[in-house]
Amino acid sequence: MITPIGPHTNLEMNREVLYMTAKEESEENVIYVGNKPPMSYVLAVVTQFNSGSTEVIIKARGRAISRAVDAAEITRNRFASDAKVKEIRIGTEAITNEEGRTSNVSSIEIVLAK
Amino acid sequence: MITPIGPHTNLEMNREVLYMTAKEESEENVIYVGNKPPMSYVLAVVTQFNSGSTEVIIKARGRAISRAVDAAEITRNRFASDAKVKEIRIGTEAITNEEGRTSNVSSIEIVLAK
Repeated sequence: MITPIGPHTNLEMNREVLYMTAKEESEENVIYVGNKPPMSYVLAVVTQFNSGSTEVIIKARGRAISRAVDAAEITRNRFASDAKVKEIRIGTEAITNEEGRTSNVSSIEIVLAK
Repeated sequence: MITPIGPHTNLEMNREVLYMTAKEESEENVIYVGNKPPMSYVLAVVTQFNSGSTEVIIKARGRAISRAVDAAEITRNRFASDAKVKEIRIGTEAITNEEGRTSNVSSIEIVLAK
């Protein structure tokens, strides 16, 4: 679902961010790794598998990338030994901050499948 | 080459570390990512490619994992656009500290190939 944006939004940056958020929220089997402890994301992945998903994608950017790998490894070693690493993709995303400056940040997507 | 260890070394841990170091140093096309700025490792990777290697493996553990992804991405985007991510492996390694305690740490290996 695409969130409509009012005419008061004149920054291209904001529009992109809103579109991306709307799109990503519709993907139920995607877990976004941030600054919480790794076990929070392990729990999210396991819950997703238990609800019937055969594939869960763990995504992270910047420093959270190491935590995403932790979450994938803890899931496989302790909670879902039948889950395999199907694919790992890395990439670079351009992020625009509030001052309009653009910087690059690395990203990772770890696809776990049963 | 295996470094011989004198009889004064009675800790199994130390022996393993020494063996590992000796083995790893023999793998010329492996870049170990630590706590230096990402560009240090980018330079190492580019140098390795320029010396004739068709494959370079970037390895990291723990928090350095994000930096390994940064190094791979910066190399591909700015210095070696013909280099492709051939394979990415993640794993868990058991580390024994000086007090004899064992803890797990995540690891990554990014294989870049021309």
